Amino acid sequence: MPELRKDPIIDRWVVLASARKSRPTDFLSTETETDSRTCPFCPGNEDNTPPEVFALRPDSSSPNTDGWTVRVVPNKFAGLESGEIIEATNQGLYQSMPGVGFHEVIIESPDHRIALENLSSAQMTACFSTFKQRILTLQQNPIIQYVLIFKNHGRAAGATLSHGHCQLIALPLVPELLQREIKASRHHHQNTGRCLYCDLIQEEKQQNLRWVSENDAFVAFCPYAPRFPYETWILPKTHQAAYEKEIDYTAFSSIYKDVLLRIQTILPMAPHNFVLHTAPDPNKDNFYYHWHLEILPKVTQLAGFEFGTGAFLNHTSPEDAAELLRQVQL
Amino acid sequence: MPELRKDPIIDRWVVLASARKSRPTDFLSTETETDSRTCPFCPGNEDNTPPEVFALRPDSSSPNTDGWTVRVVPNKFAGLESGEIIEATNQGLYQSMPGVGFHEVIIESPDHRIALENLSSAQMTACFSTFKQRILTLQQNPIIQYVLIFKNHGRAAGATLSHGHCQLIALPLVPELLQREIKASRHHHQNTGRCLYCDLIQEEKQQNLRWVSENDAFVAFCPYAPRFPYETWILPKTHQAAYEKEIDYTAFSSIYKDVLLRIQTILPMAPHNFVLHTAPDPNKDNFYYHWHLEILPKVTQLAGFEFGTGAFLNHTSPEDAAELLRQVQL
Repeated sequence: MPELRKDPIIDRWVVLASARKSRPTDFLSTETETDSRTCPFCPGNEDNTPPEVFALRPDSSSPNTDGWTVRVVPNKFAGLESGEIIEATNQGLYQSMPGVGFHEVIIESPDHRIALENLSSAQMTACFSTFKQRILTLQQNPIIQYVLIFKNHGRAAGATLSHGHCQLIALPLVPELLQREIKASRHHHQNTGRCLYCDLIQEEKQQNLRWVSENDAFVAFCPYAPRFPYETWILPKTHQAAYEKEIDYTAFSSIYKDVLLRIQTILPMAPHNFVLHTAPDPNKDNFYYHWHLEILPKVTQLAGFEFGTGAFLNHTSPEDAAELLRQVQL
Repeated sequence: MPELRKDPIIDRWVVLASARKSRPTDFLSTETETDSRTCPFCPGNEDNTPPEVFALRPDSSSPNTDGWTVRVVPNKFAGLESGEIIEATNQGLYQSMPGVGFHEVIIESPDHRIALENLSSAQMTACFSTFKQRILTLQQNPIIQYVLIFKNHGRAAGATLSHGHCQLIALPLVPELLQREIKASRHHHQNTGRCLYCDLIQEEKQQNLRWVSENDAFVAFCPYAPRFPYETWILPKTHQAAYEKEIDYTAFSSIYKDVLLRIQTILPMAPHNFVLHTAPDPNKDNFYYHWHLEILPKVTQLAGFEFGTGAFLNHTSPEDAAELLRQVQL
């Protein structure tokens, strides 16, 4: 069973899941790109993954066979595992809890070679609606406090397989960054009666320095204090606390494709991550939160400065980045 | 002038220093390893760096000529620049301050090829005493709130030049991670009358699960909740708040060499970072803090999980790591 441990000094949580990399030499092996014959995410190779937990199967085909459009399977190298016990234990200064939760892989399409942003609108909708289904399902588990969906695309962004996929980690706690966002949102709402993110969108619209793109339902801009060059956030224009409650798939697919194509024009082949932040439990009093997607190109290395301070050093201003992204002709 | 910007939601600081990477194509160029003829850190090439701010010159040679044993120069691609103005400005939701401070490179020895841990004890002492000199000097500047010394070794750890060097960033604020460490240390001291890090050393000695090495003055262990595989911390055994006040160079050189050789035996050629954490102003009431060096091998990639949560996912337990590190025959 993996373990969640809290640093005794700065209360930072670490998921320890020792199974994946047990020997030091594992770090040296460069896992090779798989092609569609050997790829565990390709149709026909369903036996090479753990049994699926969800799939969209328009042809009513049987689970774990060909015929799916989106498929969700447990991560073979899971950071968290399902279980019942969530009590924390203390030993001296140290606090730990069992690594209970879910770690899943969302296979975006049957096609080995097509990236998420290049899928058809219908296929992107299938993928984004799968996000919603998995969040709704896992939120029903009383142990789960937060469901994070994220993407690692490219080796430098942490991906080990090239077939387009996202990951989902359902945690028995609300992660620190979400807690901080929620605290600030609640504070702002108490002070002003308004949503912090809605105000941020207005500020960005007025300043007009970091705006990248928009459509009827979404805006995309480079944040004021970006961690990474060309970091871009997508937010719904109207106030929406939770992705899984109110997402407009067509408009979201459209802005996602728009932003990714802009980034790839400026930074061809750049690895990237994205993280989806949504209200932990939208049925509770998280209505002041505002869901969003943070897209994080990975063209630089985090290093001693970041690990020693918790701050970030970024050599590309969001104003310069946004200007170049805006100029891209799609 | 670089700029310090605060994220309006989670109060995370970002240093924006646009000069270094202004064009997107800069990210694509792989800077080549320099050899000693073209290396700006090699003796004889002193003209290729900004003028030195400090050097150990046993032969009393002139500044910016050959003859030094350790040399400190401003970073050519500085994240912070010297200046007088430190007032923050607000614009709507956004807070910014001029990127005032110092960003220096500490060239560890004249030899292009020898890593810090392989230098002679005398040369290591020269290097570690230079850390102390720079910290003491920069602490006298009323603008400076914290001096971070760190190392990026290897491309994956953020280094762009191979000649052995450390970096120093002197900041006009106390970085978040230090603030959190200090807050926890103060809290623990108020509650118990003892130092949190001294108690941690006792706990590690008793549990005897993550101990790596020790000598008369220092201990090294893998922390209970490590961010990275084989992460190892070095701490003085007796209570010492500040590196620059009480460092025992010989013993510190010895444990540093010991730990680095162990890590390199287990993870040959692995890139790594280290960060030196010392009390921000040891003359004030930071006596309950305990300086230490955090050594962070970089054999894995941070990815969506870390950037989306603020937590870390680590597939190597510190108990497994420490056992292998202990077994190394030096």
